[in-house]
Amino acid sequence: MRVGLLSGGVGGARFARGLQDVLEPGALTVIGNVGDDLEALGLHVSPDLDSILYALAGLNDEERGWGRAGETWNALAAVTAWGGEDWFALGDLDIGLHLVRTQALRGGERLSAVTERLAGAAGLSTRIIPASDDRLRTSVHTPAGTFGFQEWFVGRGHRDEVDAVSFDGAEVAQAAPGALESLAAADAVLIAPSNPYVSIQPILAVRSLREALASRRVRCVAVSPLVGGRAVRGPADRMLSRMAGGTTPAHIAGCYEGLVDALVIDEADAPGDAGVPAVVTSTLMTDLDAARRLAWVALEAAR
Amino acid sequence: MRVGLLSGGVGGARFARGLQDVLEPGALTVIGNVGDDLEALGLHVSPDLDSILYALAGLNDEERGWGRAGETWNALAAVTAWGGEDWFALGDLDIGLHLVRTQALRGGERLSAVTERLAGAAGLSTRIIPASDDRLRTSVHTPAGTFGFQEWFVGRGHRDEVDAVSFDGAEVAQAAPGALESLAAADAVLIAPSNPYVSIQPILAVRSLREALASRRVRCVAVSPLVGGRAVRGPADRMLSRMAGGTTPAHIAGCYEGLVDALVIDEADAPGDAGVPAVVTSTLMTDLDAARRLAWVALEAAR
Repeated sequence: MRVGLLSGGVGGARFARGLQDVLEPGALTVIGNVGDDLEALGLHVSPDLDSILYALAGLNDEERGWGRAGETWNALAAVTAWGGEDWFALGDLDIGLHLVRTQALRGGERLSAVTERLAGAAGLSTRIIPASDDRLRTSVHTPAGTFGFQEWFVGRGHRDEVDAVSFDGAEVAQAAPGALESLAAADAVLIAPSNPYVSIQPILAVRSLREALASRRVRCVAVSPLVGGRAVRGPADRMLSRMAGGTTPAHIAGCYEGLVDALVIDEADAPGDAGVPAVVTSTLMTDLDAARRLAWVALEAAR
Repeated sequence: MRVGLLSGGVGGARFARGLQDVLEPGALTVIGNVGDDLEALGLHVSPDLDSILYALAGLNDEERGWGRAGETWNALAAVTAWGGEDWFALGDLDIGLHLVRTQALRGGERLSAVTERLAGAAGLSTRIIPASDDRLRTSVHTPAGTFGFQEWFVGRGHRDEVDAVSFDGAEVAQAAPGALESLAAADAVLIAPSNPYVSIQPILAVRSLREALASRRVRCVAVSPLVGGRAVRGPADRMLSRMAGGTTPAHIAGCYEGLVDALVIDEADAPGDAGVPAVVTSTLMTDLDAARRLAWVALEAAR
């Protein structure tokens, strides 16, 4: 069973790892969000692609929830001491990856090609494909003004309420090589339990990817990122409340209208009328086993 | 007593520290070699300027002889794991500095301005000025071909004998802002115990700097980098043997013909007829005290 997964960062990455563990090697392709990519200290950082890579390779820090296990922060401490730009937390191990990627991109390599090389270096059979090689950046519109995603998320601690999100460059962004093909070849498509607005919508903002999903011939199942109407981490619940009017399964499903055939929700949420069939399970990925169980349920719903 | 010092990396940096310790705060200006600057992993690295900065700030690793004390190597380990360029040893603390400088340079700041900021961040009263803000790179001509300095020094472990060195860009390179002024204002000029060919000549290859030294009105004293005709570290002795025909004080002084008024040499070397008066002392800078004593002797010779 070949599976295409649309995923954002941490939660989605953990779900991807669960999927990878229960599928045959090579059966999974993850299409990752690039809307929150940024330049920090002159390095091209792709937080979501990295979270996916680290989780799939077993390099992620389970406790912290992001970044690498065993991470150290010496370079950033030096940056601070030298008066450099230190608002974005970059660990030493992480910087090693960013240096390799940034050098490749400056040398003209495409993000998708670098990403494929990195996955290969980690020995992954799972493919990781950025939604697009073209510049596509999420902007967040708030009462305090419009901000780049990371400026809002990290710089301002995502405290501002969000009125709308937009995706600069999305109108002209092409799907990265392999993305459409992997969706076309998939026996099922899944949408990870990621923030619909800033993790999944930036992927769907690539017209050809949205069209591929809208015209799918296989089932597409989304996993809700909420547990009891609350985000496990991050601002998804607040964004849904303000922009969709609530945090029920119906509000989640509304973010994917016409694109999904079922929604996996947590036992703590009342299915209500979500617009699509709801599959109820425990969605909290407290450990790898829980991630695998959730992956299994989502796959069953997609069969 | 205001002093201008021409210096390369490790040995010169240690000498600079000795000078800084025995001079009044703010009395020392170090003009540093940039001929062995390089791009590694997309980072602009200025090994000699950094050695000087680290030594003056007390951040250098005394035992290893280069780089920072307490250095860690996690980013580079990650670079290796991801299949990146790892031939040039970059520690995490060191990378922090390179990130700050590289970002500033890409933003249009001049190397001299960045260097001044870094020295300021370290709280130094000593000025560090790169010989030039313009691109000036040392090439090494060997029987095996011509190599960039670092390619030869690090990449090939400086095993190839050297027939000649040349300095790409030197014909048009301007002295960095402040360099000529500091030499003009100095009460004495010193040349550090650095490799004459690849540490000092690249500085003197900047025409205006050489002319400033040639037309000096104050004494200029060089310190020999050799002890008993041998380099304390690095290939200076082999280069002198091959290119100058020997490793006596006369051969060292010959590298600075017309530019120095005296040469400080080690007790292990016979003064012979060096062409300029020789001042004999212990030149091995085994610790800070030894560096200060050597600095003192050189200053006395320059009075």
